[in-house]
Amino acid sequence: MAFLIIQTDFGTGSLSVSAMHGVCAMVDSGLKVDDGNNDVVPFNVLDASDSLMYLMPYWPEGTVFVSVVDPGVGTKRRSCVAKLRNGQYVVTPDNGTLTYIKEKVGIEEVREIDESVNRLKGSEDVHIFHGRDVYAYCGARLAAGIIDFEGVGPVYPVAEVVEAPYIRAEKSPGRVSGMINEAGDHFGLIGTNIPFEWLSESGMVYGDTVTVTVTRKDEQIFRREMKLEKTFGYVPVGDPLVFSSEMRTVMMAINQGNATVEYGLGFGPDWKMTVEKV
Amino acid sequence: MAFLIIQTDFGTGSLSVSAMHGVCAMVDSGLKVDDGNNDVVPFNVLDASDSLMYLMPYWPEGTVFVSVVDPGVGTKRRSCVAKLRNGQYVVTPDNGTLTYIKEKVGIEEVREIDESVNRLKGSEDVHIFHGRDVYAYCGARLAAGIIDFEGVGPVYPVAEVVEAPYIRAEKSPGRVSGMINEAGDHFGLIGTNIPFEWLSESGMVYGDTVTVTVTRKDEQIFRREMKLEKTFGYVPVGDPLVFSSEMRTVMMAINQGNATVEYGLGFGPDWKMTVEKV
Amino acid sequence: MAFLIIQTDFGTGSLSVSAMHGVCAMVDSGLKVDDGNNDVVPFNVLDASDSLMYLMPYWPEGTVFVSVVDPGVGTKRRSCVAKLRNGQYVVTPDNGTLTYIKEKVGIEEVREIDESVNRLKGSEDVHIFHGRDVYAYCGARLAAGIIDFEGVGPVYPVAEVVEAPYIRAEKSPGRVSGMINEAGDHFGLIGTNIPFEWLSESGMVYGDTVTVTVTRKDEQIFRREMKLEKTFGYVPVGDPLVFSSEMRTVMMAINQGNATVEYGLGFGPDWKMTVEKV
Repeated sequence: MAFLIIQTDFGTGSLSVSAMHGVCAMVDSGLKVDDGNNDVVPFNVLDASDSLMYLMPYWPEGTVFVSVVDPGVGTKRRSCVAKLRNGQYVVTPDNGTLTYIKEKVGIEEVREIDESVNRLKGSEDVHIFHGRDVYAYCGARLAAGIIDFEGVGPVYPVAEVVEAPYIRAEKSPGRVSGMINEAGDHFGLIGTNIPFEWLSESGMVYGDTVTVTVTRKDEQIFRREMKLEKTFGYVPVGDPLVFSSEMRTVMMAINQGNATVEYGLGFGPDWKMTVEKV
Repeated sequence: MAFLIIQTDFGTGSLSVSAMHGVCAMVDSGLKVDDGNNDVVPFNVLDASDSLMYLMPYWPEGTVFVSVVDPGVGTKRRSCVAKLRNGQYVVTPDNGTLTYIKEKVGIEEVREIDESVNRLKGSEDVHIFHGRDVYAYCGARLAAGIIDFEGVGPVYPVAEVVEAPYIRAEKSPGRVSGMINEAGDHFGLIGTNIPFEWLSESGMVYGDTVTVTVTRKDEQIFRREMKLEKTFGYVPVGDPLVFSSEMRTVMMAINQGNATVEYGLGFGPDWKMTVEKV
Repeated sequence: MAFLIIQTDFGTGSLSVSAMHGVCAMVDSGLKVDDGNNDVVPFNVLDASDSLMYLMPYWPEGTVFVSVVDPGVGTKRRSCVAKLRNGQYVVTPDNGTLTYIKEKVGIEEVREIDESVNRLKGSEDVHIFHGRDVYAYCGARLAAGIIDFEGVGPVYPVAEVVEAPYIRAEKSPGRVSGMINEAGDHFGLIGTNIPFEWLSESGMVYGDTVTVTVTRKDEQIFRREMKLEKTFGYVPVGDPLVFSSEMRTVMMAINQGNATVEYGLGFGPDWKMTVEKV
């Protein structure tokens, strides 16, 4: 029996997430259902895509991720299940949520959900909660083995899977840049999509001082020198640093402080970070 | 083995909820315990009742709901288990939490919890956490089959089950009204207890413009024309609309906005919404 | 199969907690993983220690608690597993998290985690997320029976387990005092480490009026007379009272109010409460 992981922008602890758990229990009371990130930034499909990328390596092959970030619920957009090259599945509206997965993990095949079969019976007149009525229900049937992947519905070309625009990471000697994709409230970590190994490839190593610049729509918001270190404890409490995130990407933080709040930073396709060798 | 669903006003992630999970694990390590809504508005028994109504249709027959919204903990009020007409159970203080369930689902029989049998041994001197010591413990014994419903304690008349006062929904030609029972923080959805099908019965259909009025204790707080549509995407981003909630009741929201915050609305027995045909 | 309970300061609903669940599922898909308190005050090892003390009595013997409050992640501090006298285990950085457990539950033996065996393969270059790569992974192997306690790594003296400084509870006739160890946001409960039975031993009984004084670093912050009662409902709504917490320690609250906010109180080694007979 595969795991089914629920990700939404409904908010952790949302009653709607519990209803999705319940639908899974109704499909098969033996299903192993767990929560991923239910605090995806509302309506933000790139944040949804990032969360999936974060979790996928740590769940077993065969895991079914049900992702519901769905600003277009009830209007025309495909509901799909993607079978990934790593042997996992994503059940989601096809609205950009698969952006990074399509590019970096790879989609083997994608199918549109046939709602005449894979939709909770009696829910046809409800137009705002496909998370419960379509995605959880279809995902549970797949995870429980009631349907196989072919049973999801008709295949369509992987090339048609919707990709949302974002800032790609770049490198040159002494300089790397990319998109800020995380500016957390809790620890105030500032994450990017820049592979950490690019720093050494561009000539920057642990112990170096680097200059970090953040721009929003090309306007400079932040610029400061700081250390490149292995982890927080290598700099004094209250000092910023650059280090490798647990996803092996370039991250900035303040040791026991909150860089999001203290530096007033945000994330998404408007926010770019550059790291340069001093 | 039945599911046991925990609902409280302790806050999602509360340590107290984890202690309740633990008590269930001690009673039977094979029990399937999951969380419902642990963000019930503190001390608000009508909100607890609404949450139960929301979840019940999506969990299997036999599910035991343990609901702990208990402003009177440690003082005189009955602790009970209600056996519902739909085959589910609710373990709760009898303080109004069963209001909507009694009226709309139906209570087949209600029993007062015999604490000499169904209370965690050694907890008799703790007066503030019946959620752990009485409700989770008794609910777990019932869900695990250690006791049957008769084993809960003595039966008492269903007519004595406490009902909290609320504003009932009403309809007339061109006009429906009812209580606002939800004004969410997260998406800002404004929910009511007005059956959505009453709109068409009163002559209002998808695409119509309607006038929404909100009063608090008869004082007008909000009044505006808006569209009646199937879902958010039918109106421009930032515009309000009336639509059917996933419970098939009348709901108001702003497409990708937050009506609770932007219009300063609340919920409960002081808050009434009226929808009229223009 | 033992339960594995995850406690962190990552925030309830954190994606990182879900990755820890996933690592457990990869080690053994049959593991029973549940969440304890993931809202430990960030970097606060005494709060972590308190949370463990709160939960332990309500989870079965053999339960493995994985606690990740780790301001020193990636720098030199021991990663350990403590086998407790009650038959449970704690997997944690040895940084003060075991303070109260060492003193009040008792540690039978402690072992340093051998990362050459008990660390997620391929994670050696990630320096900031030992919660996932070391603690969850090692804890899951222990809970699943893949390793026994000896398999964790080399034993070291229990006397070396790090203890964080705190204010010990004291009593004398007509007077008890101790540390405030909880000042909750949600219900505003003010908890202490003073055993509740000390009140009667010092001559104070239910129904008495007592004087509560709170100091911060010896400066008086709050002083007021209030009733000592069994539970909230014995005083009018809005009145403060002293009562027994569910851990049988001295607690102060306002009936249906929020003492943390209304009285501006905090917790930790700077905050002391004294209760005196009037």
